[in-house]
Amino acid sequence: MKSRGNKKGTDFFRDDGACPFVRDVLTRVGDKWSVLVIVLLGSGAQRFSDLRRTIEGISQRMLTHTLRGLERDGLVVRAVYPTVPPRVEYELSPLGHTLLKTVTELANWASANRNQIERARTTFDSRKTGGPVSIG
Amino acid sequence: MKSRGNKKGTDFFRDDGACPFVRDVLTRVGDKWSVLVIVLLGSGAQRFSDLRRTIEGISQRMLTHTLRGLERDGLVVRAVYPTVPPRVEYELSPLGHTLLKTVTELANWASANRNQIERARTTFDSRKTGGPVSIG
Repeated sequence: MKSRGNKKGTDFFRDDGACPFVRDVLTRVGDKWSVLVIVLLGSGAQRFSDLRRTIEGISQRMLTHTLRGLERDGLVVRAVYPTVPPRVEYELSPLGHTLLKTVTELANWASANRNQIERARTTFDSRKTGGPVSIG
Repeated sequence: MKSRGNKKGTDFFRDDGACPFVRDVLTRVGDKWSVLVIVLLGSGAQRFSDLRRTIEGISQRMLTHTLRGLERDGLVVRAVYPTVPPRVEYELSPLGHTLLKTVTELANWASANRNQIERARTTFDSRKTGGPVSIG
């Protein structure tokens, strides 16, 4: 089974120091708030207040934390324009743009399949033990 | 800015009750361990012990938790074969297979861009305040 780690598409399971980092990156780019921010910024630069208004339910603290993490990873650029008062906008970096297609697909998948997942959860929770499916 | 919420590809920002659920689904499918398990099961059914051996660093408890969450969402099927002793395998459901391509892309993106992200983090952390980039 260990040989699976060498198959195409599963290189990130290798025990060469890359794996923990890839997981770390996945934690960021798969995070629900990060996904939503990246998708929104895919339409163009936005101000903090615009993002907060559009992303229903996100707190000021969590949006700050999410934007800072995306900026640290080089996915989002925080631009300050020298107007009076200064205007601050967030926009995708070129690297962030390369991620846009995949995270948009992920979000669209979640949206398209939510009913099916909701039904699966109801079925799972109604089983007394959540036990195994017998086959054969 | 509110009109952005009606753009194609951002329907999941709508305030119609769908949005929190989509975020909930994103929390699952974007989770680093879930992504790795889905990618591995894309190669075929596996036993718990095989998954644990391949996914370096995951604890027994976390793998149990991850598989149970994926099973509850209808993405993974836990199959028990009536051998002596019974053989238990995990495999992707048809719904899980529809997610495979996107999460594989996400994991590959993370793997391909890890050096660039690492550099961005070093640059960010070396700035005293992590402050804004001035433009204009």
